[in-house]
Amino acid sequence: MTTAHPSTHVFDDAIALEPIESGRWAGRTHAAWGNMVGPFGGITAATMLNAAWIDPRRLGEPLALTVNYAGPLADGAFVVDAQPVRSNRSTQHWAMTLYQRDQVTTTATAVFAVRRDTWAAAELQPPEAPAADAVAVTPSPIPFEWPRRYEMRFVHGAWADLSQPAELAESESLLWLRDDPPRPLDALSLAALADVFYPRIFRRRQRFTPAGTVSITTYFHAEQQAMAAQGTRPVLARARGLRFVHGFFDQSAELWNDMGQLLASSHQVVYFKE
Amino acid sequence: MTTAHPSTHVFDDAIALEPIESGRWAGRTHAAWGNMVGPFGGITAATMLNAAWIDPRRLGEPLALTVNYAGPLADGAFVVDAQPVRSNRSTQHWAMTLYQRDQVTTTATAVFAVRRDTWAAAELQPPEAPAADAVAVTPSPIPFEWPRRYEMRFVHGAWADLSQPAELAESESLLWLRDDPPRPLDALSLAALADVFYPRIFRRRQRFTPAGTVSITTYFHAEQQAMAAQGTRPVLARARGLRFVHGFFDQSAELWNDMGQLLASSHQVVYFKE
Repeated sequence: MTTAHPSTHVFDDAIALEPIESGRWAGRTHAAWGNMVGPFGGITAATMLNAAWIDPRRLGEPLALTVNYAGPLADGAFVVDAQPVRSNRSTQHWAMTLYQRDQVTTTATAVFAVRRDTWAAAELQPPEAPAADAVAVTPSPIPFEWPRRYEMRFVHGAWADLSQPAELAESESLLWLRDDPPRPLDALSLAALADVFYPRIFRRRQRFTPAGTVSITTYFHAEQQAMAAQGTRPVLARARGLRFVHGFFDQSAELWNDMGQLLASSHQVVYFKE
Repeated sequence: MTTAHPSTHVFDDAIALEPIESGRWAGRTHAAWGNMVGPFGGITAATMLNAAWIDPRRLGEPLALTVNYAGPLADGAFVVDAQPVRSNRSTQHWAMTLYQRDQVTTTATAVFAVRRDTWAAAELQPPEAPAADAVAVTPSPIPFEWPRRYEMRFVHGAWADLSQPAELAESESLLWLRDDPPRPLDALSLAALADVFYPRIFRRRQRFTPAGTVSITTYFHAEQQAMAAQGTRPVLARARGLRFVHGFFDQSAELWNDMGQLLASSHQVVYFKE
């Protein structure tokens, strides 16, 4: 198995931005990341984080990212505004807005931080799972492009069999997950990986209903070195719903490296139709 | 026990805003909500949500709120800018910025939504706890004002005895919680209640270290009617840390009504010094 050079990886192609002026960038959707309508939300999240990441004014590494999907992003060109709104000694706060034809489709805030050696402890323990290479890859059964950009090895909670609706008591999925083709892990890919979990309502109800992420927040625990140490090996990923009511639900997810360290926690609220 | 009229409750006094122009509001910190430096973060979160809530352009009810604490808020006057950036049929997205002496101290995004009857299910189950009136009130042992604005009945994980540092294996707190004096529940008070949990590192290490919320995200599951039905009765509140490393940690919390329904889930990333 070979790893594509990062600069030619389809992930990096999709999140690439061309400078217009300071804090203003031009991008465009990429067909390889297509979803039902427009692109996969995770690639949009990574693109907005990238607008701050590649800015020469950026200090530190990603700590927190919130992306709000305000309206549909159509296939084609877009503009991202990204400005640092406050820079401190150890943290820097950013605000980002994605426009398409002068309409806001997506807003985001990000916090970057300089990490230091401190007391450390794990509290949430990783779920038990066989090693990644002992779990079979499940190909995506859905007719969109973006799931084919990920290698998913489900320990449990695989793609629902939507042909046989049957309500389940819980919605948890546990899987080993990485980019396909493999790409060395970094905060940008992690921001997208955190949104890989399909809406928990599909799993819970074993049937399709129109649904989409309204807002996602991801907290990053790993500095670049720790991500680089993970390389292209799969991360262990878990997601489950909390409460489904009145057309919305929340789901929480965690991503762990293969040493059982929590790399990121991620939470989102999702719209559903019926 | 009597309930103060909402318009004279100290919570409503603290989050009150005076219009300057459309989407621009004047506020000031309130001594009753004082923390170590400036006000309790929860009252700032509620104030920023209020700037959208009282705007005549606002559609629907709070669904998601992210507040980023970019810099210290000093005691005194401030200005909040709050603008709807996209209005859809069932959701409306807002961006808010709090300024003090022309410097950004806080940013926020909020999503408001029109709720509809849909399929519904609870997945996360409420923790077991005795009824609120069977649990004693624990007065705050810390010398700041804001904890005195809440009645806290700890089932477990009460205020740490910081005089006897001893590292614990976990940081969970479970308590019955309400405003003191009691105030009928709404999304504004819930936004503040979601930040009541003191930094989990104090609990985990049983010692004080400089610490503060960097970013908090709260998802609201209850429409106004369900909150009104809860009235002034305590909500069941749980919080625990996930991973502590390199000067930051994340903690997750849930708030339940006394029928065991999840009213809100809330997540935050917190800075700590050593």
